[in-house]
Amino acid sequence: MFYFNWSSSEKKVARRAFDVALTAELAEIMAEFKARAAAAAEPADMWEVERYLRASRIDIDQKYIYRYSRLPDLFAWLLREGRIQEEHLLGLAEEKLALIRRWATIVYDE
Amino acid sequence: MFYFNWSSSEKKVARRAFDVALTAELAEIMAEFKARAAAAAEPADMWEVERYLRASRIDIDQKYIYRYSRLPDLFAWLLREGRIQEEHLLGLAEEKLALIRRWATIVYDE
Repeated sequence: MFYFNWSSSEKKVARRAFDVALTAELAEIMAEFKARAAAAAEPADMWEVERYLRASRIDIDQKYIYRYSRLPDLFAWLLREGRIQEEHLLGLAEEKLALIRRWATIVYDE
Repeated sequence: MFYFNWSSSEKKVARRAFDVALTAELAEIMAEFKARAAAAAEPADMWEVERYLRASRIDIDQKYIYRYSRLPDLFAWLLREGRIQEEHLLGLAEEKLALIRRWATIVYDE
């Protein structure tokens, strides 16, 4: 955990980058959900959609936690996954950007 | 609980009546699910569909238990709800039909 200070302009940048990624991910889930629902033919397909939605909701809830102490790690992950680009982070202080860039290059064994 | 004997022809009648009701109820849930999915516009609508599916699945699992000791009660409930008609039960012994008919008239406080 890094307890940086966040200026009010940095908070705006952070909130925007966070919202960009979250909105896009929710839109992807929505599209997948609608496609699966439209294709569902058997009851088992419905319960599979239920599992998909539950897993997606839990994943979103665990990942998108707007807490300043966790944002650098989240942004590093979003950068690495291509869910945001560096330009979304422009306006953050260099100390934060350097850390986020460095973490973004780390490959975790997941 | 009533531990009737079920002849093999009665078992066939029971299985068919059970399947008629279950198939129809699953088809209703499927139709409602597809309509809600198609109309979903916001992420909150997706999570609402998830709740609907979970509640429906639990309801189905609790209601449609194919155990001979519970079938008279289930058939009474299905008759009362209009999910099967008496003709679906033709072929059951009179002792079972009498019990099912009597139970079907009972109004429970739910």
